[in-house]
Amino acid sequence: MNPDLAFAVWSGERAQRVANVLDAALPAADAAPRALHEAMRYAVLGGGKRVRALLAYAGGELAQADPAHADAPAAAVELIHAYSLVHDDLPCMDDDVLRRGKPTCHVAFGEATALLAGDALQSLAFAVLAGNARGDARDQVALLAIAAGSRGMAGGQAIDLAHVGIALDQAGLEHMHGLKTGALIRAAVRLGAHCGRPMTADESGALDRYATAIGLAFQVVDDVLDVEGTAQSLGKTAGKDAQQNKPTYVSVLGLARAKAHIATLRAQAHDALAGFGSAGRRLGEIADWIALRKH
Amino acid sequence: MNPDLAFAVWSGERAQRVANVLDAALPAADAAPRALHEAMRYAVLGGGKRVRALLAYAGGELAQADPAHADAPAAAVELIHAYSLVHDDLPCMDDDVLRRGKPTCHVAFGEATALLAGDALQSLAFAVLAGNARGDARDQVALLAIAAGSRGMAGGQAIDLAHVGIALDQAGLEHMHGLKTGALIRAAVRLGAHCGRPMTADESGALDRYATAIGLAFQVVDDVLDVEGTAQSLGKTAGKDAQQNKPTYVSVLGLARAKAHIATLRAQAHDALAGFGSAGRRLGEIADWIALRKH
Repeated sequence: MNPDLAFAVWSGERAQRVANVLDAALPAADAAPRALHEAMRYAVLGGGKRVRALLAYAGGELAQADPAHADAPAAAVELIHAYSLVHDDLPCMDDDVLRRGKPTCHVAFGEATALLAGDALQSLAFAVLAGNARGDARDQVALLAIAAGSRGMAGGQAIDLAHVGIALDQAGLEHMHGLKTGALIRAAVRLGAHCGRPMTADESGALDRYATAIGLAFQVVDDVLDVEGTAQSLGKTAGKDAQQNKPTYVSVLGLARAKAHIATLRAQAHDALAGFGSAGRRLGEIADWIALRKH
Repeated sequence: MNPDLAFAVWSGERAQRVANVLDAALPAADAAPRALHEAMRYAVLGGGKRVRALLAYAGGELAQADPAHADAPAAAVELIHAYSLVHDDLPCMDDDVLRRGKPTCHVAFGEATALLAGDALQSLAFAVLAGNARGDARDQVALLAIAAGSRGMAGGQAIDLAHVGIALDQAGLEHMHGLKTGALIRAAVRLGAHCGRPMTADESGALDRYATAIGLAFQVVDDVLDVEGTAQSLGKTAGKDAQQNKPTYVSVLGLARAKAHIATLRAQAHDALAGFGSAGRRLGEIADWIALRKH
C-alpha cells in the first residue's frame, strides 16, 4: 500500500475508534436533562479531524502501547478540545455561527445550554481519563488539567482575546499559540506515550519538541487557509481572523514566509522524531498530514 | 467552651486554612495572562462561607484523617463551586451583578475573561485534586468529575434553566437541587472521608443520606432567606428568584411549610450520623449551622 493511503486507512480507523469511545462515554441524547445531553453530543460527535486523538494514539504506538490503552486519553483530549470550541464560539468570545459546516452549538441550542454543555464536557474529559487511565492516574489528570488551564489552553485564549487589534510579533504569536493550541497537542502526545513503555527524559523532551513544532505548524496552516480557503472547504467562516483584526502568521510574516515557516516546522518535527526510528513513523505521518492539509 | 463558639472557632480556622491552600494553588495575580489570573483570584478568594470545604474537612475528621490530607479535596470542591458561580452569574444564565457583596466576575472583568476564568478554575480543581490526592486518585477524580458534570451540578443547572416560569412540584424541585447543589455537597463529604479510614458500604450510604439532607436544607434556607433577607445581609440581590419566576421551596410549599421542612431535613441529617458516634460531631454541627443560618 502506498504510504499516503496507509496513513489514510490508519487515521480513518482511529478517528472512528475514538468516535465510538466518545459515543459510549457521552450520556444518551434522551437521558435527562435532554437539551444539555443533545448539545454535548452535537458538539463532540459528527465531525472534526480528531487531530488530538490521532496524536494520542500515535504517541501510544511510539511507546508500544495497545491501542485500547490509548482510548481514554484520546477521548479526553477530544472532549477538552470540543468544550473549548463551544465556549470560543460564544457571542462574548469569537461570536461565530458556523463550525464544521454546521451551526455552532449556541446557535443550535441557545447560549446558556452551550455554556453548560462546554462546562460538562470539561468535567467528562476528566471522568473519562480518570476512569480508564493506565498507569498513574494522578500524573495524567494533572498533565491534562494544567494543559487545559490558565497556564495552558485557557491562558492562550485569554492572550488571544487581549490582542484583538493589537500587534503581536512572531515570538508573541508563537507564545500565544503555544498555549492556546500547543498545550493540548503536547498533552495529547504525552498522554498517549504514557500508556506504553516509560520514556527517558531525553525522549520526553524530543516528544515535546515534536508536539510544539506540529502545534505551531497546525496554526500557521490554519492562518494560510483562512486567507486562501473558502467557507465550503473549511466548514467555518473564512477570512474571520482578518475581519476581526486578529494577529495571524500571514499578517505578521506575509503569505510566502508563512508557507516557508510551515516547511521549517515540519522538518523540526521530523528531526525531533529521529531518535525513535521506525516507532516514530506514525507521528511523522501526522506531521506531514498537518503541514500539507488543504482544509 | 460553649459548643457554638467551639464550632465558630473550628470553622473559622478551617475556612482560613482552605483560603491559604487556594491562595497557593491559584496563579499569582501578576503572572501572565494577568487579567485571567486576577479574575480567577477575585472569584475564589475574599469571601464565601466555604461550606463545601468545611464538609470535606469534617468528612476527613469523621474518617480520622489528618486535616492536611483533606486540603486538596477541600480546595478542589471550592474551585468547582467558584467556577459554577462565575458561569451562573453570566448574562446568558442568571445575569446577576452582585455576589458576596461585590460586583460579579463578569461585571468586574468582562464576559469573555469571566467565561475563561470559570473554565480555568474547573481545570485547576482537577489539577489540585490529582496533584495532592491521598489514596486512589482515579476514584477521587472520577467522583468529582461526575458530581460536577451533566449528571450532577451542570445537569441541575440545566434543569433549573429549563424551568424558569414552569411549575415544578416538590419532588421536581428536590431532584433539581439534588443535582445543582447536592451533587457537589455529597462529593465534598465523600472526598473528605476518602482521606481517612475506609468506609463500609453502610457508612458510605449514611454519609450520602446526611449530605443529601443538608444539601436540600441549604437550598430551602436559601429560598427562605431570598424572601426574608435583604441584599445587605445576603451579599447578593434579594428577591431575585421570585423576580425571575423560578420555582422555589417558598413558592411550592409556602413560607411556614418551607421552614418546617428545614427542621425535618436537619433531623434527617442527624439521624444519618447516629452510627458514627462522636466522630460525626463536626458534621452534625455543620448541619445545625446550615439549618439555622441567617445569611
